[in-house]
Amino acid sequence: TLIALLPGDGIGPEVIAEARRVLEALDLGLVFEKAPVGGAAYRAAGHPLPPATLDLARRAEAILFGAVGDPECDRLERALRPEQAILGLRKELGLFANLRPARLFPGLEDASALKPEVAGAIDMVIVRELNGDVYFGEKGMRTTAGGLREGYDLMSYNEAEVRRIAHAGFRTAEARRGRLCSVDKANVLETSQLWRDVVIEVSAEYPDIELTHMYVDNAAMQLVRNPGQFDVIVTGNLFGDILSDQASMCAGSIGMLPSAALNAEAKGLYEPIHGSAPDIAGQGRANPCATILSAAMMLRHTLDRAEAADRIENAVTAALKAGARTPDLGGTLSTAAMGEAVLARL
Amino acid sequence: TLIALLPGDGIGPEVIAEARRVLEALDLGLVFEKAPVGGAAYRAAGHPLPPATLDLARRAEAILFGAVGDPECDRLERALRPEQAILGLRKELGLFANLRPARLFPGLEDASALKPEVAGAIDMVIVRELNGDVYFGEKGMRTTAGGLREGYDLMSYNEAEVRRIAHAGFRTAEARRGRLCSVDKANVLETSQLWRDVVIEVSAEYPDIELTHMYVDNAAMQLVRNPGQFDVIVTGNLFGDILSDQASMCAGSIGMLPSAALNAEAKGLYEPIHGSAPDIAGQGRANPCATILSAAMMLRHTLDRAEAADRIENAVTAALKAGARTPDLGGTLSTAAMGEAVLARL
Ligand SMILES: CC(C)[C@H](C(=O)O)[C@@H](O)C(=O)O
Ligand SMILES: CC(C)[C@H](C(=O)O)[C@@H](O)C(=O)O
Repeated sequence: TLIALLPGDGIGPEVIAEARRVLEALDLGLVFEKAPVGGAAYRAAGHPLPPATLDLARRAEAILFGAVGDPECDRLERALRPEQAILGLRKELGLFANLRPARLFPGLEDASALKPEVAGAIDMVIVRELNGDVYFGEKGMRTTAGGLREGYDLMSYNEAEVRRIAHAGFRTAEARRGRLCSVDKANVLETSQLWRDVVIEVSAEYPDIELTHMYVDNAAMQLVRNPGQFDVIVTGNLFGDILSDQASMCAGSIGMLPSAALNAEAKGLYEPIHGSAPDIAGQGRANPCATILSAAMMLRHTLDRAEAADRIENAVTAALKAGARTPDLGGTLSTAAMGEAVLARL
Repeated sequence: TLIALLPGDGIGPEVIAEARRVLEALDLGLVFEKAPVGGAAYRAAGHPLPPATLDLARRAEAILFGAVGDPECDRLERALRPEQAILGLRKELGLFANLRPARLFPGLEDASALKPEVAGAIDMVIVRELNGDVYFGEKGMRTTAGGLREGYDLMSYNEAEVRRIAHAGFRTAEARRGRLCSVDKANVLETSQLWRDVVIEVSAEYPDIELTHMYVDNAAMQLVRNPGQFDVIVTGNLFGDILSDQASMCAGSIGMLPSAALNAEAKGLYEPIHGSAPDIAGQGRANPCATILSAAMMLRHTLDRAEAADRIENAVTAALKAGARTPDLGGTLSTAAMGEAVLARL
């Protein structure tokens, strides 16, 4: 089973190394192949997503991704910036369903800015669409009739795009507490009106799921006020970008949360929700747990190895329970030491 | 001095009544004229923003607005829904600069879901653009080449639109702690790239203001993690909608926070940031403070009566200090009793 390792920029290589050690310790017959991506790939090969990297991603059964983002590349033309690598992979591989679980790990109550009783109730998954919306519509700079510079980006969704992510949302809710909240801005946007109409149509196939609708501004409030009210949220690419980062911060531990991006065949790219954190790169201070837990999601969703996934998740929980903490969690363990704390409890 | 009172739907009339009492008690020579807006206007006159209401809004020196939104109108075609009234007023009167202060009122630490030390540090203003962005671009439903329904909305900003709101942001920062954070999604959106370029150009005129840039997903995280880091945020219509509601909830008191929408001549529409709350309408349970504080903002920003504004704000603080609390703040006072608690301390 070929796994593509795309470490990327900043702390990416450090956290990927620990996830690889954990996967190797489980002896699952995985074969790893590494390729550069993001700013690292731009420097090595002149493009954030070089053909060889994309080819590896296509050949592999699953992709374990670190992070991309490099301040030194911010001045490059858009097509050459590190972020284009992850956008390109999502689009080229049809990875339309982004699953972002958010929950507070026991023992990490202090890490959240929310009161412990509020943060402790968080146990949700955000299902974010990844292949459409204003991310991939026609965009550019033009000059208005009056001679002014104008930037534009077309937001749109068609019914097929909404339908497949709606199914992903309903199915995720079926496997959990049976409640799905669809988030949109239907009081202002036609894209959202279509979204809402189609989600309602799809709901007929899931009579046991309780479907609600919420405007995105209200959702951003409710995620602070009472995040425990949510089971599964399904939403578009842009709103999902904002709300899922907010939800993970509510859970207090940006360094703890994994994510999956799946295509129609459940092939997936797995990555921590945190970024490349250039400020602490190379110092061994990064928390590898989000990437280790992303590896667990990979075992569960793409490789069908649920018990191995359980073993990893339980080991992370046990390591935390034993007090293992990287600096982001208020501790002093290095990235490698945290990886070892998990390894020791597999 | 003519003030237009547009109470609107749900709890709107109840909270407007209290703000009017407070303004009348100050004996400022204001003349009030009332007109229906939103669902109430649709029922009375067949349109959420009838010509007579728009005319009053134009004639008046300033507008005090309650709230619009009515579940019974959700099935109407978009042009007739209550929300179109507020969007129409913003556009027709050129009210492009939305000022949304967020702070935790002393004594309300319990009302925030954030830890008291986190919430207590909130003292910020969000300056949101109100006349452009995906709100007002071309939008509609169409059929794709493959015969699929598709909804679309064009996001765009031109340099003139960004420049005037950037100035509003810088000036707001000048009057405060001198720090401005511009929020965009320039790593994905061309609209945001233009936004960022123009904000940087305008910054040359404000050498004493410290300008930073933040992606909107990160801003949503930072507003939870450490909202005290912000002084003034300037952002577009859509991101401002989401972030300002999030920020007010961080401050714990959706019933406490006012807002202003100003045009180039500092004529303004003033409204509480909360909505019409149909679930508690007509019960005398609404908190009138946000509307009373909106009246204070009106005195300060449009009517040039800063001391009168101070008197109102101090009276609200004093009433809270004395323990006056509506149900949303964990108390039992009615809307009118809360209004009286403020009146008694003018
Ligand atoms: C890096 C950026 C393009 C990306 C996004 O906006 O999707 C990131 O924020 C994410 O959420 O994965
Ligand atoms: C009612 C709605 C159209 C409006 C908006 O999105 O601007 C509201 O949410 C607001 O923030 O004032």
